[in-house]
Amino acid sequence: MAGSSFGTIFKINTWGESHGKALGVVVDGCPAGLSLDEEDIQRYLDRRKPGTGSMTTPRKEDDKVEILSGVFEGRTTGTPISLVIRNTSQISGDYGEIAGYYRPGHADYTFDAKYGFRDYRGGGRSSGRETAGRVAAGAIACKILEQLGIRIAAYTRSIGPVEISMDNFNLETRLHTPSAMPDTSADKKAAAYLENARQNTDSAGGCMECIIEGVPAGIGDPVFEKLDANLSKAVMSIGAVKAVEIGDGSLVAARLGSENNDSFCIQNGVIKKCTNHAGGILGGISDGDTIVVRAFVKPTPSIFRSQRTVDKNGRSIEVQIKGRHDPVIVPRAVVVMECMTAITVLDAMMINMSARMDSLIDFYKK
Amino acid sequence: MAGSSFGTIFKINTWGESHGKALGVVVDGCPAGLSLDEEDIQRYLDRRKPGTGSMTTPRKEDDKVEILSGVFEGRTTGTPISLVIRNTSQISGDYGEIAGYYRPGHADYTFDAKYGFRDYRGGGRSSGRETAGRVAAGAIACKILEQLGIRIAAYTRSIGPVEISMDNFNLETRLHTPSAMPDTSADKKAAAYLENARQNTDSAGGCMECIIEGVPAGIGDPVFEKLDANLSKAVMSIGAVKAVEIGDGSLVAARLGSENNDSFCIQNGVIKKCTNHAGGILGGISDGDTIVVRAFVKPTPSIFRSQRTVDKNGRSIEVQIKGRHDPVIVPRAVVVMECMTAITVLDAMMINMSARMDSLIDFYKK
Amino acid sequence: MAGSSFGTIFKINTWGESHGKALGVVVDGCPAGLSLDEEDIQRYLDRRKPGTGSMTTPRKEDDKVEILSGVFEGRTTGTPISLVIRNTSQISGDYGEIAGYYRPGHADYTFDAKYGFRDYRGGGRSSGRETAGRVAAGAIACKILEQLGIRIAAYTRSIGPVEISMDNFNLETRLHTPSAMPDTSADKKAAAYLENARQNTDSAGGCMECIIEGVPAGIGDPVFEKLDANLSKAVMSIGAVKAVEIGDGSLVAARLGSENNDSFCIQNGVIKKCTNHAGGILGGISDGDTIVVRAFVKPTPSIFRSQRTVDKNGRSIEVQIKGRHDPVIVPRAVVVMECMTAITVLDAMMINMSARMDSLIDFYKK
Amino acid sequence: MAGSSFGTIFKINTWGESHGKALGVVVDGCPAGLSLDEEDIQRYLDRRKPGTGSMTTPRKEDDKVEILSGVFEGRTTGTPISLVIRNTSQISGDYGEIAGYYRPGHADYTFDAKYGFRDYRGGGRSSGRETAGRVAAGAIACKILEQLGIRIAAYTRSIGPVEISMDNFNLETRLHTPSAMPDTSADKKAAAYLENARQNTDSAGGCMECIIEGVPAGIGDPVFEKLDANLSKAVMSIGAVKAVEIGDGSLVAARLGSENNDSFCIQNGVIKKCTNHAGGILGGISDGDTIVVRAFVKPTPSIFRSQRTVDKNGRSIEVQIKGRHDPVIVPRAVVVMECMTAITVLDAMMINMSARMDSLIDFYKK
Repeated sequence: MAGSSFGTIFKINTWGESHGKALGVVVDGCPAGLSLDEEDIQRYLDRRKPGTGSMTTPRKEDDKVEILSGVFEGRTTGTPISLVIRNTSQISGDYGEIAGYYRPGHADYTFDAKYGFRDYRGGGRSSGRETAGRVAAGAIACKILEQLGIRIAAYTRSIGPVEISMDNFNLETRLHTPSAMPDTSADKKAAAYLENARQNTDSAGGCMECIIEGVPAGIGDPVFEKLDANLSKAVMSIGAVKAVEIGDGSLVAARLGSENNDSFCIQNGVIKKCTNHAGGILGGISDGDTIVVRAFVKPTPSIFRSQRTVDKNGRSIEVQIKGRHDPVIVPRAVVVMECMTAITVLDAMMINMSARMDSLIDFYKK
Repeated sequence: MAGSSFGTIFKINTWGESHGKALGVVVDGCPAGLSLDEEDIQRYLDRRKPGTGSMTTPRKEDDKVEILSGVFEGRTTGTPISLVIRNTSQISGDYGEIAGYYRPGHADYTFDAKYGFRDYRGGGRSSGRETAGRVAAGAIACKILEQLGIRIAAYTRSIGPVEISMDNFNLETRLHTPSAMPDTSADKKAAAYLENARQNTDSAGGCMECIIEGVPAGIGDPVFEKLDANLSKAVMSIGAVKAVEIGDGSLVAARLGSENNDSFCIQNGVIKKCTNHAGGILGGISDGDTIVVRAFVKPTPSIFRSQRTVDKNGRSIEVQIKGRHDPVIVPRAVVVMECMTAITVLDAMMINMSARMDSLIDFYKK
Repeated sequence: MAGSSFGTIFKINTWGESHGKALGVVVDGCPAGLSLDEEDIQRYLDRRKPGTGSMTTPRKEDDKVEILSGVFEGRTTGTPISLVIRNTSQISGDYGEIAGYYRPGHADYTFDAKYGFRDYRGGGRSSGRETAGRVAAGAIACKILEQLGIRIAAYTRSIGPVEISMDNFNLETRLHTPSAMPDTSADKKAAAYLENARQNTDSAGGCMECIIEGVPAGIGDPVFEKLDANLSKAVMSIGAVKAVEIGDGSLVAARLGSENNDSFCIQNGVIKKCTNHAGGILGGISDGDTIVVRAFVKPTPSIFRSQRTVDKNGRSIEVQIKGRHDPVIVPRAVVVMECMTAITVLDAMMINMSARMDSLIDFYKK
Repeated sequence: MAGSSFGTIFKINTWGESHGKALGVVVDGCPAGLSLDEEDIQRYLDRRKPGTGSMTTPRKEDDKVEILSGVFEGRTTGTPISLVIRNTSQISGDYGEIAGYYRPGHADYTFDAKYGFRDYRGGGRSSGRETAGRVAAGAIACKILEQLGIRIAAYTRSIGPVEISMDNFNLETRLHTPSAMPDTSADKKAAAYLENARQNTDSAGGCMECIIEGVPAGIGDPVFEKLDANLSKAVMSIGAVKAVEIGDGSLVAARLGSENNDSFCIQNGVIKKCTNHAGGILGGISDGDTIVVRAFVKPTPSIFRSQRTVDKNGRSIEVQIKGRHDPVIVPRAVVVMECMTAITVLDAMMINMSARMDSLIDFYKK
């Protein structure tokens, strides 16, 4: 089906393969009048780009974005914004041999099962490069949210066994550490851990977290369009994510009600929750508190040691994967999570505007 | 927004409040020619009904379903199936006083924030009773999947600290234990744990798991309509769920790639994964293996002890919740998870039918 | 597919067959806080009910609507409104024999071709009775539009060769004439024409028109969600409609540009069009002028004379249709057109609220 | 809203302005395995290009399409196909002055009313150039339909008062006449009529018709997703279309039932309609006969004579439009109608594949 669209009012449609000519996204439903240029988007794409050192792939793509439509004299016009990123560094030769067999942990087999064949070069559409379009679109959502007073930030919480410590937590730091951890000390440990994994021709997984501050109470719709349900879909749709949590997540299962309930109290004359086990969402609707989402990411499936698998003729074989791969996905996926979360929250906020008769009357009869 | 619909081709639209006249669902897009009667649906609704003993609420609803349309001479006609369940046991008097304040852990506050007021009786639309419509619809999806050779089963994995043991695992058992655990020994321990919680005017959370066997490889669509992304949304949309996992879930974050990759091998001439850390989904598409989904459920927020909160005029108060409430949500939510999962998988299978040119040609030119 | 839903934010889902137990609709996305009771809806359903005399079927249904959810203490809550109308006067015996053959001009053959069989009683889901759900939902949309200062009215423009005259035009009159014509003189001629058709065991077609006043400029979205495109779909989806026009409709094809262009001018300090050939929509977006939609309806296919057709075993036969049928569809379809138009316009207005950055900022930062 | 998408399974998302850098479309949900290259698409775009002589604008765009994704080794992969057409001949200077006023018959005013400002160059997104994306996408739909044995063809039926004659009708001819008429004699008369209009600084409207042969009975879904309802939306969404008809269209309104009903009969052992007043659709579902759709197009609003209008400061002015404009829209819109119709029919056929239980069982259990 048409699985490459996301959102109802603020809707994105990504396209492109790892080793095709280009990747991109069409953002439809962006409100008119937002000041926007390529630099606003490039800043986010640069966070997704491979860095240097042990944490990232040696493939270097410029990921230079071009705005082809929807912006006029520096402002969005309300019509679709088409964003294109040309691929410049693809080396398809690396992938010739994987055409014939199924890499463990990859989508090679399932794409063949579904479509009968696949663009095998670099994983085609199932490559992590697919997320470039999400990030380009998300940069726009983030800019809009910022103007609505909403702050959104994702970061690495753990890589392998190395977790960040709240004692060292500094949100800005995540933009500068190779691991995207908001803790320089943990970042160094993560680097050592990854260097070791790489030397063992192995790879690592990790956890990323996104916090959203300033979302007013009342966002999200009951039953199936709950804000947490849509956030889960948004985040689980990022390749390699295998678990999603809201607030205290899986920990709640072992708690007593008296421990887990967040009491309401009054702070500065405003109704607040005294604690935030719920992660800012009650009954699928934002409660005004910080929204907390967490995602658990599997280790990069491409590892440079011999693995058993089968070829497409059904013969057991040993393979040795080549190519350029990140030893851990998390540091580059953090901005993808931030962007998917932003798109989800913004769309819910736009939908929410007609939830009450008095809002309609205010809007149309003033 | 219109948040009460789910699905693209097999689409459900639920409606109804805890203490309104009735609840129900419209199932649109059900294939024509399925043999269906009320008994097929009642069987699932009965699994959702409160049981006896310490695990469930004393509120007793018959939950008797009536088919109002879409079935003719015992078979579905392809047109919408309207299912209605009359409420018979609502005692609104229990809820009069909660109109004025916000119960901790409930959606009272967020509904007021969104809509300006709410149907406070029994939680209104945010009540667990809302899931009756999901189960009625899911019973139909389950019957269709069965005819396609797919077996789907959800069960309780843990309640508070009590977990099932794989040594005692018997899937059928889940239909008979009050806890919906597939392990009679764990079930007894869970009952004791809950009895203790209840005596302490407290409540418990837990974990539920759903396994789906027989789904062919190739189901789910890349990027945003990934099977795991839609399963996450489906399951996270169930009230009180705070975390969702696919396959080994959050455990993958601490693993090495060499531990987590599932090798492919040949079994009986067919391509299989040798292990199933992935939980039956690779790149968002089913791989032919058992699909494993897990959900973590918070403790019932209604506890019968004094709690601090605020009233809608912004005054701090102490409240003592009354009414009839389950001490744990999981045993009755298990069938809801089974149903939401069934609807998601069936919809993805229907969408998948046009994924290839040769399928279209076979269908229309044979 | 799930073809029984319409709308994006204000979304309706109808269900029910002509001779089933009941018909109904779920209205999801209705703004909270609208005062609503069954009488508001009944008033519209009564306009759809068969009248007396030569223009309508002798089948008499009470069409008594019941609100099952979504309204609390006299106001909508923002959650789905479920409306049910029980069938009370179905006489299935009339239809036993049509199970085996295909009535000319009806959907018997196409339902069989699609689904393999059909609920043949009274046309099942393809009966005009299906529109009861649309009208029940549309009554709510109309009430909301009224509160936004929008007046919407559909009426009969012609029946067979009998057309209304603008000289006699009185909008209120349409609510009292059996033909739904806003012209008592034409109404009488139409009655005579229909009486004659009936005596000849024949039936008539006609044209209906809907005008919407007070829609602000700016409603509708470019390209595929144009207001006129959605109005066309809404109106063409009413059974028996074979043509739809906006403004001057098909007449424009033979005009010169200089005749057809509407100049802009200033009236009372406001920008207006000096003429309204465009019917209130330019580039798919409302221009502030009266919106004009027209629909052409085929003659009732059920006529009480012998007709040639085939049975489902592929044999040529002569048939004589029985049952109770309107000699013309238009007078009862007029309120259906009014309702579908109202739903379309309201949905577009709700969607439009987030079209500009300054609207978002006003809404969320005030 | 996100108004630039169309379709459910076969979904297109167009983007681009008349005088922006480029225009394009993302086609998502195209079945895998279709042989496709740029030439397949270029052939359709070339039919949309301005021709020579009196019927078309002097603006000459190459409209050279580039496939950026979704095709691998000459076949579609099932992933989104991104198509881009660079603008090369835009002369924005022509449009500087229209920034400040509202051209009669154009969407300038409504875009400003909706969005607060607009990309005024060449009409921006409301330009006829927007349809390039539709045609590029439609070329793919047409190629798929061809492989399913379906023939689809649109042509000009009339320009101003000049109508084609069935005596001269030759479908292939439409591809060679400047008017896109399937009648060389009418084509010459139309050319003379247009030359005269042009000399009078005026423009003309017309009627276009699309016929679709080979669609099996059973396509389209009851109630709101009727095939004729979706065709109406598809065709009415083309700029300048003001009326849509199915089959005999508005003529049916004045007929008797006995004249309008199509009897069924047996031809070569197959059930057929003896006549086709219905235009191949009964109850919103295809009946196996030729589908006939007609669209009435207003005269080009840009005429080169003085017109009264207002500027955006609300002052009455006289304007003289410059730029390059077709004297009639129809000849170039014919291929757009063909493409929109193809997309609609194909999408309905893909959706139809899961309408029956036996289809699901055949597909998944064979």
